[in-house]
Amino acid sequence: MSDATPLKVVSLLGSLRKGSYNAMLARTLPALAPPDMTITPAPSIRDLPFYDADLQAQGFPAAVTALAGAISAADGVIIVTPEYNYSIPGVLKNAIDWVSRRSPQPFAAKPVALASASMGALGGARSQYHLRQVMVFIEAYVLNRPEVMVPTVQTKVDGEKGEITDGPTRDLIAAELKAFAAFIRRLS
Amino acid sequence: MSDATPLKVVSLLGSLRKGSYNAMLARTLPALAPPDMTITPAPSIRDLPFYDADLQAQGFPAAVTALAGAISAADGVIIVTPEYNYSIPGVLKNAIDWVSRRSPQPFAAKPVALASASMGALGGARSQYHLRQVMVFIEAYVLNRPEVMVPTVQTKVDGEKGEITDGPTRDLIAAELKAFAAFIRRLS
Amino acid sequence: MSDATPLKVVSLLGSLRKGSYNAMLARTLPALAPPDMTITPAPSIRDLPFYDADLQAQGFPAAVTALAGAISAADGVIIVTPEYNYSIPGVLKNAIDWVSRRSPQPFAAKPVALASASMGALGGARSQYHLRQVMVFIEAYVLNRPEVMVPTVQTKVDGEKGEITDGPTRDLIAAELKAFAAFIRRLS
Amino acid sequence: MSDATPLKVVSLLGSLRKGSYNAMLARTLPALAPPDMTITPAPSIRDLPFYDADLQAQGFPAAVTALAGAISAADGVIIVTPEYNYSIPGVLKNAIDWVSRRSPQPFAAKPVALASASMGALGGARSQYHLRQVMVFIEAYVLNRPEVMVPTVQTKVDGEKGEITDGPTRDLIAAELKAFAAFIRRLS
Repeated sequence: MSDATPLKVVSLLGSLRKGSYNAMLARTLPALAPPDMTITPAPSIRDLPFYDADLQAQGFPAAVTALAGAISAADGVIIVTPEYNYSIPGVLKNAIDWVSRRSPQPFAAKPVALASASMGALGGARSQYHLRQVMVFIEAYVLNRPEVMVPTVQTKVDGEKGEITDGPTRDLIAAELKAFAAFIRRLS
Repeated sequence: MSDATPLKVVSLLGSLRKGSYNAMLARTLPALAPPDMTITPAPSIRDLPFYDADLQAQGFPAAVTALAGAISAADGVIIVTPEYNYSIPGVLKNAIDWVSRRSPQPFAAKPVALASASMGALGGARSQYHLRQVMVFIEAYVLNRPEVMVPTVQTKVDGEKGEITDGPTRDLIAAELKAFAAFIRRLS
Repeated sequence: MSDATPLKVVSLLGSLRKGSYNAMLARTLPALAPPDMTITPAPSIRDLPFYDADLQAQGFPAAVTALAGAISAADGVIIVTPEYNYSIPGVLKNAIDWVSRRSPQPFAAKPVALASASMGALGGARSQYHLRQVMVFIEAYVLNRPEVMVPTVQTKVDGEKGEITDGPTRDLIAAELKAFAAFIRRLS
Repeated sequence: MSDATPLKVVSLLGSLRKGSYNAMLARTLPALAPPDMTITPAPSIRDLPFYDADLQAQGFPAAVTALAGAISAADGVIIVTPEYNYSIPGVLKNAIDWVSRRSPQPFAAKPVALASASMGALGGARSQYHLRQVMVFIEAYVLNRPEVMVPTVQTKVDGEKGEITDGPTRDLIAAELKAFAAFIRRLS
């Protein structure tokens, strides 16, 4: 890939809650991306059924096909997710469980970056390490660092605007996206 | 708890597929339980919506209340689950995400045992270690060993009967259930 | 165990550095223990050789025997450790590797609590989750919560005194030790 | 890197035992490497002291400098290790703890592959997933798949020759090394 080609990245959101802090984090990304990267939201994971091989045997649901298509078409995926019970939210894992069954498998050799936010002290870290293990199986390449884990996120947002406004957090996000751009180009 | 009190255990199944090997594993449990333990299936996790705090604000769905009630009423829970993408199936994690929001929290101080089966070499091990981390947050007590991780399960079942028939695997399951009974009594 | 029996706990330190913040954390424990618990340091892990089955075949080194004996004799063990490279320090893991080879195995059915401190944001969390997995194999029972992970520890100590002086951190430690006492009594 | 440049890979062994099965696995690698890759053993990790920042302040031990130099000079590193107590052997982790303190840090952006063997059913899998988390911090790039985890290794070796002789295992190792060569070239 030439350095001039713009990079198309999709963000995959792991929370359904309307006022989700992680949704705010996802909305904060596009403006902080480097000039050669655009970030757009992947289709919602809300409309998928639970993964069930019997259901798959009847044909992939349209919502799965749409999500898989968006991931396949992207140069990279950034997963933005809360941590539920020290791990990946079930709703997000279910989406990955469906997408991973498509052939060709959309995550194969796909550059992936992770970001998470929480009201607690660890910023969703535990969810990210479980996601990293998932990515081994589905053969995605996950950016190592910088890691974006936003603790006490409730103090770092403008609720009206629905975005992260804390300066150091925005700098960290921008640094991750810049590193992600370099990572995508290195791998292509 | 006196040694004479019978132990009521529920099994929580992480797969929806009709012909699921893990469903066969779950069906194999009751007959292998020690005389002082009964094992019955928890309500299905199929009918839950995806966890969404906005939905929770409108009141817990009946399927959540039923599942949480079964867990609360049990002396112990045995989670029987496949591994999806090196981690917990989304559908199972979603059920735990819901149940964990109930107050009092049903898993708190609850003895838990794990069992998994897979067609591959590791028998679902990776799913179990992620589940163990989840259990730290929700403060369940998880039996350490013996660990039941059934590899190449397709060679160890009677598909007609829908149960595990392999002798050494049945012995291992019986050993786990016996250890689980002692663990429950130790903790009570 | 009657509620009147005093509980003897040993602390196992994972750092060798003289000015170690985790050593300060370990030194802070005894004064914060509940009245029915005494906490004394386990023998240092510094004098052990690297684990090597050929060496073991010649007989266990005296330093291993001493450490294993202290663990066996204790009612509970609290492991206090930094995180090195997102995991357990090699020097601490080596000590566990040696001790685990003793028969009877000192950690079997032993109540264990974890505490860690770091200059970073996560307070050693990643080291603790790896330790928890180790404890599954060696069949220790690990306290779930409260978890003591002290972030930015350099702002929470009196370097002269060599102890943690931050009030909320001391309260958290005291809460963990109180929960640990109850956990030990529950398991005995 | 042009496709004609030969790739120099070092193998880093996590066991000290003379008759180690993982040493046999490491010895099996060179003959199975693709024509454009040479694999040589890294210096032993036996002669390092335990990591101690006070010791580091006096200057890096020669054994650390030698090991770090070998890793820095290599195009890739393959870590071959047993699993001890469901995690990384302390002796191996200690070597990584030392090497990671060198500046420039030898593992930064270094392609890494993992291989393990055990007499049990999981082939050292748990050790590998902990190593993967370590590699996030030290910013190595770890090959996803194929994963080489050799279970019941005692049935797959020629003890005289000191190598793996089992055909399917040798094929798997060859497949990993071929994928590793492509991975190294992709990243350079």
